[in-house]
Amino acid sequence: MSFSRLVRFISTDGKIYVGDAILPGSTYDARKATHAKIITGDVFGEYKVTSETKAIKKLLAPLAWEQIPTVRLLGLNYAKHAIEIKMPKPAYPVLFFKPITAIGGPTDIIPVPKIAQIDNETDYECELVIVIGKKALNVSEADALDYVLGYAVGNDVSQRAWQIKKGGGQWSVGKMFDGWAPFGPAIVSSKIITNPQNLRISTKINGQTVQSENTSDQIFGVAKTIAFLSQGTTLLPGDVIFTGTPSGVGMGRTPQYWLRNGDVVEIELENVGSIVNKVVYEKDTKAKL
Amino acid sequence: MSFSRLVRFISTDGKIYVGDAILPGSTYDARKATHAKIITGDVFGEYKVTSETKAIKKLLAPLAWEQIPTVRLLGLNYAKHAIEIKMPKPAYPVLFFKPITAIGGPTDIIPVPKIAQIDNETDYECELVIVIGKKALNVSEADALDYVLGYAVGNDVSQRAWQIKKGGGQWSVGKMFDGWAPFGPAIVSSKIITNPQNLRISTKINGQTVQSENTSDQIFGVAKTIAFLSQGTTLLPGDVIFTGTPSGVGMGRTPQYWLRNGDVVEIELENVGSIVNKVVYEKDTKAKL
Repeated sequence: MSFSRLVRFISTDGKIYVGDAILPGSTYDARKATHAKIITGDVFGEYKVTSETKAIKKLLAPLAWEQIPTVRLLGLNYAKHAIEIKMPKPAYPVLFFKPITAIGGPTDIIPVPKIAQIDNETDYECELVIVIGKKALNVSEADALDYVLGYAVGNDVSQRAWQIKKGGGQWSVGKMFDGWAPFGPAIVSSKIITNPQNLRISTKINGQTVQSENTSDQIFGVAKTIAFLSQGTTLLPGDVIFTGTPSGVGMGRTPQYWLRNGDVVEIELENVGSIVNKVVYEKDTKAKL
Repeated sequence: MSFSRLVRFISTDGKIYVGDAILPGSTYDARKATHAKIITGDVFGEYKVTSETKAIKKLLAPLAWEQIPTVRLLGLNYAKHAIEIKMPKPAYPVLFFKPITAIGGPTDIIPVPKIAQIDNETDYECELVIVIGKKALNVSEADALDYVLGYAVGNDVSQRAWQIKKGGGQWSVGKMFDGWAPFGPAIVSSKIITNPQNLRISTKINGQTVQSENTSDQIFGVAKTIAFLSQGTTLLPGDVIFTGTPSGVGMGRTPQYWLRNGDVVEIELENVGSIVNKVVYEKDTKAKL
């Protein structure tokens, strides 16, 4: 039996497990699950969903750092978002990367280091996240979805001053900080999400909706994205791809809204689930610039 | 005893080993070594340079993909290079990333996929490469070199059309292809290279010198780079940082020179060694764009 909603979690015994979330009631959100069936083996190879269950004490990112070779992200991949941040609609996918240390879990804090506090322009971005299941090189758009293990939802946290004004034109510094790519709550199997291009995606800040869109508005859908990124480039099992954010980011609002210390950011993707991350301004690290 | 010049290689028995290169004669270049003393254990923790030697049949990248959490690179980090490609001298380090699949060995081919052949603008960039030895977070410039395991030399192969014109302003697509970050020939211990800011670095194409500079001309030296990149961001053991290229790239020449099928690119860094990689245009993959 293959998994439905793969979670990685700390159980009440203090140990880390990988499991298939047992959904309570009618929710699709593994963040609400209290128990999971333990998975043994390699989820990218041979594995087994056992009948043994464990209690979920804290959800972790569905993959550990060591399981993620590369973290890719797309920019400007929803037409209305490109307009709001005054960028042209791209002819090809716009690619950037984060270090794996940016990966965080579905309920982890988002730490805002001193260097990111200087300009006070920290922003949220709700995104559909692809998890690659097997090696993909020069795959066609028609075959691309066969290479997907499943989907999750993520927040591409972004510091706009570093991203746009102080990074020399490259977005990387404004995106690189520890914990700035939380994702989860589960990897929902591509057998459950057969069409990733018709899912509601939304962000709430302290309970108020700020982004609300459908993945049907993506300029480059999941299949096109995988086909493009695999040109001359081997995508590896465990690679995660954040596929861009819709309109409604803080930078595009009137007035602009920047994430404050204590803000709670909840991001939800239909049929996939939600992540909820609290913003915590760091106090005791020195900004060295 | 700590290592001097760590190499990873296939020996005559077909197995992969990690070793301390035995330099023949007066060269500093581990690429010329025929044998190495076997290293056992974890080079980022407890390890031992044994007295057992093995023959080097083929050098590999000094770290395997699984040992490299993140591949960082700097752009525009030599003043004369910024001028030649008509970019302003940056106020802060300009950061971008490559996927780990870009990592190649010191004598591997550089495959040029069809997607990179369309515009025929494939370029070379000789670079000093830092290998991080231990976790670094918010480190000062004064302490930064303590976090370096050693240095290597690399080629940040770049397709300029995708980097500059077709990537939506982000350089990533023009830099992402398999094997486009060969490095080596060894990780030369920071105990040997105590001052990384006074090393000759050069590129030869088919024996003709096209880049020749000194790392003293870096805008952001190794210590500044590590201090900057560690702000709010944990650098991990095994992270590699390519530190930018000097002037003389093909894009900046008159007339411009783009790498051709069969070109041999030899890059050398004083006291560190050399890599030599042949450019091979791929014939049988389809460009999907």
